[in-house]
Amino acid sequence: MRDRRTAILEAAARVIARRGVRGLRVEELAVEAGVSKALIYYHFDGRAGLLGSTLGFIGDRAERYTAGPSGPASLSGASPPPAGREELERSLLLEFQDVPEVRENSAAWGELRASAVFDPELRGELARSGLSWVREVADLLRSATSRTGAGVSGPVLVAAAERLTALLEGLSARWLSGILPLEHARALMREAIAVELQQLGAGVRADCDRVAVDV
Amino acid sequence: MRDRRTAILEAAARVIARRGVRGLRVEELAVEAGVSKALIYYHFDGRAGLLGSTLGFIGDRAERYTAGPSGPASLSGASPPPAGREELERSLLLEFQDVPEVRENSAAWGELRASAVFDPELRGELARSGLSWVREVADLLRSATSRTGAGVSGPVLVAAAERLTALLEGLSARWLSGILPLEHARALMREAIAVELQQLGAGVRADCDRVAVDV
Repeated sequence: MRDRRTAILEAAARVIARRGVRGLRVEELAVEAGVSKALIYYHFDGRAGLLGSTLGFIGDRAERYTAGPSGPASLSGASPPPAGREELERSLLLEFQDVPEVRENSAAWGELRASAVFDPELRGELARSGLSWVREVADLLRSATSRTGAGVSGPVLVAAAERLTALLEGLSARWLSGILPLEHARALMREAIAVELQQLGAGVRADCDRVAVDV
Repeated sequence: MRDRRTAILEAAARVIARRGVRGLRVEELAVEAGVSKALIYYHFDGRAGLLGSTLGFIGDRAERYTAGPSGPASLSGASPPPAGREELERSLLLEFQDVPEVRENSAAWGELRASAVFDPELRGELARSGLSWVREVADLLRSATSRTGAGVSGPVLVAAAERLTALLEGLSARWLSGILPLEHARALMREAIAVELQQLGAGVRADCDRVAVDV
């Protein structure tokens, strides 16, 4: 039997991606998820609890599809997962795919993120999910740069990961709102990865990075 | 006498920054602007027209405060406007200030941008405002790189400007939702400018210390 709580979260992500956070009504969510309103109230601590859990669910789901062994951005099919730079590129570029799951996930994430400006109760979960993503990208940057032998410090990698993920969110919002073509968004993201790796790999600007980030 | 149309747009930006696009009701907007509902309908072609005009108004206002002869990020007071790189940094960093006008403008812009995902009628104005901003930043990048003698092609400058503006939007959303401290957002933005200028061949290493000290 399918987990009811998961069914509710899947339905919430779908409704938010379609109509936004403020288009989410518990009555409609119950219909969409095929459960009773009472069950939604049983599983989640009010609207804020439901939105926070949906944000966490979306973050986890994105981690799954960007960490899978194969995907459209992978050229290696069923072979072992790519190392370093290829894995970094695949992970970030998989967020730009014109497939329903990715589009829905990105739209719901963007919408929950935007509503956190007006809804402080969402901030805790947003910060947690965001931090986990930044750490994951910083680890990929570490793998991608370690082969060059350049010793890059943790804070420098984290700052680069913060820039890449924030850029991804900015580009994703433009793509989803229809003002930036998908292929162009992918090209800009790929270039940004190259530009960040270039400065990390060269290893000449580590001191400067640390000064600027620590301020 | 104050222009009534401007008064309505100022009030719309205020309300959207405070409660989001879906918190904008014509009744409340009329009270906030001190005009009648009829006057709002007279000046704007429905809700979509009002939102599109507000987006354009916010874009123009941001151009004014980021292009002013002096500001919190400028240490030069009434001296001539800085050239090249300094102007680029000032223009982008002025979007991160904890003053009501900037916070309100950024929040309203982010909110209108986010709602364009669900509201195709906003896309035309969003694309126009976005393009104008990208061109302005590309021009600043051209000035910043021209002094080094590096001949950088138009499309390369535009791509760098697209990345910097999309990153700014991503960082701004994190700052406004309270998960990224203002100074950290500024540091990441400053670093991104340095990284982009480095790849454009602007000799960033030599300027590195100045970047950290100036802002």
